[in-house]
Amino acid sequence: MMNLSIIIIGDEILIGQVTDTNSGAIARTFGPMGWEIAGVHTVPDDADAIRDAVCAALERSQLVICTGGLGPTKDDITKRVLCGIFGGPMVRDEAVTENIRRVFALRGLQMNELTAAQADVPQSCSVIQNRLGTAPIMWFERDGRVLVSMPGVPFETEGMLPEVAARVGRFFGSDDHLMHRCLMVGSVTESALAQRLASIEDAIPPQLHLAYLPTPGLIRLRLDGRGTDKAALESQMEHAVAQLKAAIGANLRYDGDATAAQIAIEACRRAGLTMGSAESCTGGTIASRITAVAGCSDVFLGTVVSYSNAVKQNLLDVGASTLEEHGAVSREVVTQMACGARRALGCDCAVATSGIAGPGGGTPQKPVGTVWIAAATPERVVTRELNLPGNRARVIDRAATEALLLLVETLG
Amino acid sequence: MMNLSIIIIGDEILIGQVTDTNSGAIARTFGPMGWEIAGVHTVPDDADAIRDAVCAALERSQLVICTGGLGPTKDDITKRVLCGIFGGPMVRDEAVTENIRRVFALRGLQMNELTAAQADVPQSCSVIQNRLGTAPIMWFERDGRVLVSMPGVPFETEGMLPEVAARVGRFFGSDDHLMHRCLMVGSVTESALAQRLASIEDAIPPQLHLAYLPTPGLIRLRLDGRGTDKAALESQMEHAVAQLKAAIGANLRYDGDATAAQIAIEACRRAGLTMGSAESCTGGTIASRITAVAGCSDVFLGTVVSYSNAVKQNLLDVGASTLEEHGAVSREVVTQMACGARRALGCDCAVATSGIAGPGGGTPQKPVGTVWIAAATPERVVTRELNLPGNRARVIDRAATEALLLLVETLG
Repeated sequence: MMNLSIIIIGDEILIGQVTDTNSGAIARTFGPMGWEIAGVHTVPDDADAIRDAVCAALERSQLVICTGGLGPTKDDITKRVLCGIFGGPMVRDEAVTENIRRVFALRGLQMNELTAAQADVPQSCSVIQNRLGTAPIMWFERDGRVLVSMPGVPFETEGMLPEVAARVGRFFGSDDHLMHRCLMVGSVTESALAQRLASIEDAIPPQLHLAYLPTPGLIRLRLDGRGTDKAALESQMEHAVAQLKAAIGANLRYDGDATAAQIAIEACRRAGLTMGSAESCTGGTIASRITAVAGCSDVFLGTVVSYSNAVKQNLLDVGASTLEEHGAVSREVVTQMACGARRALGCDCAVATSGIAGPGGGTPQKPVGTVWIAAATPERVVTRELNLPGNRARVIDRAATEALLLLVETLG
Repeated sequence: MMNLSIIIIGDEILIGQVTDTNSGAIARTFGPMGWEIAGVHTVPDDADAIRDAVCAALERSQLVICTGGLGPTKDDITKRVLCGIFGGPMVRDEAVTENIRRVFALRGLQMNELTAAQADVPQSCSVIQNRLGTAPIMWFERDGRVLVSMPGVPFETEGMLPEVAARVGRFFGSDDHLMHRCLMVGSVTESALAQRLASIEDAIPPQLHLAYLPTPGLIRLRLDGRGTDKAALESQMEHAVAQLKAAIGANLRYDGDATAAQIAIEACRRAGLTMGSAESCTGGTIASRITAVAGCSDVFLGTVVSYSNAVKQNLLDVGASTLEEHGAVSREVVTQMACGARRALGCDCAVATSGIAGPGGGTPQKPVGTVWIAAATPERVVTRELNLPGNRARVIDRAATEALLLLVETLG
């Protein structure tokens, strides 16, 4: 199996100011293409450190991808180090200059000498034009191995990865076909699911590989296939997916790769229904997850975050006596919230949450992590009590996922 | 300067399933203690890879911290590899057994043989009891160098870092006092701020170090001090902070380290006012950021996410003719949204957003990234037009920050 080393360059990542997400994006692109990830090395903006990491990676791996250190400021030295390793002079690249001018014009800025210098590239590389920014993507080859230098800005790296991956695919010219399928599974623990799927997993042919990718509240099952005979592989994949789906049964939330918010939007869209939310303990997280999905506005109308009881009463028509009698964290209140959201927002369906996210506010009867969720459709209201582990952020995150999935379940 | 190497162990991180945040937490703890971060190496759950990374790190660094690979499943092999490197047998540790029993009881679970084996530790280490989980923290020493093995669960690692840092401080026995101060700065670019602070920065004594940590919409200025004379250091810090504050002037948003949401909550609390939000393009992100802050409920009452125009009209009293005449993304609509939120939610202050987050919906007059924000207080309404770069997630993120900071500015 060929392997890939990733090098992340930048003081800002090393000192913990910025969290690296590029290595994950690269791994998620190349892993399914059959590349084993040998390691990720994060190094400072220091010529010696970069040189050592690059040389060690080129020893170990057929493919090396590094990100960062390509900006116009003096800290960014990747380009000079790579020029030293692969030899030859730096040359001003006209196509890169043109691209920088274009990007600057889009942003309404004038090019200056500092940015013009971004068009200097080692003669030893070929350039992949960066459509999303000014730093050129550089492709180096030596003894059948490849090093690709990409920008540090995640938006640019993620956006340009498909083009880089396509060129890598052509260069290493494998005849293998790659396929993958995802199934999203809810309301079951990873270990219980693994037990249920054990016999299927054992019988899966060696060309296929099943992976469990659990997130709070939703397990992503990913089946990867790789082989030279496309038709045979397709039929093996289909067979395995059918077996998995039969065993997953009612816990299947989506055939495909999607977040809980995407699954809920899709379920509403399929049913021709609009949706909204009434959020207390999740505090707008459900709305924010839904609106992170571009194009959600045909389905999603809005949300009332009713953090205070007055807002629950005034905007969602929750009864004062209900609050008094059962408390805000109760089946009764969350039911009224969901119904109130349908009326107030004019949507067909609504999810609602009320709970104790902590760290304060817990009682012996309702400890931190107690959350009531509801899903209301034109036909019915379904509620569920959750007892969630972890800190405030985890409780909110998990409650938001569970509420969205409860709506999906309720819509059937 | 002594240096620290960090090793992150785990297939799930390497394949991009989970984003590593432990290395950042470790760097942010040890950096201010005077440790240079030599590098972060992420390696698979593979004995050879772990051994190579640990040995290389012990060559390079006085202190090595690794996280991960300590769970009870067969993939988790860090402990056995470390036992091999530092020598001696594995022994069952009674205090660790007791700790596992305690953690399991807290979670309402019974201990089984698989988890009991977590209490086996190399005789060559001393254990730091993990109060937050079952995997023991192991401290190894050799030739004056230290390796600490911590769990992979971020909640446990972050929670236990202060104790590990304290022991590292005692072991390497520095007499130095460490201090840091943060200033949060808004409405100015990093380069413009750097120019304004250049002369102060040049004159800062060598015991102090100033760092710029920009996030979209808010720059965190961090001043670190280190010295043997505590009183002298304190006075130098005070002097530098005073100079910085004078130069930052009206761009100072907070004296301390805080998120935009925390700053807004604090500003309202100081003014004795409650707040809420009316969100269109930010879609609940402002609410979700505010409610991520524990204890926000004395200030924050609620939010209306008015994604559809009908919700803007029905819940926020935005005029149909205003929407018709000016469009949803306009000064007029965002003003009415902010005022409508104050009425609907019964809060003293409100922020509002309406914009085009993209990728669709842009026009030549109002391209993607056009966002109107408003902040309403009992005294006045202030609006601002933003033209934000980047993709949907970045536009939403930045607009939420700018709206929160506009309220802080407006409250003075």
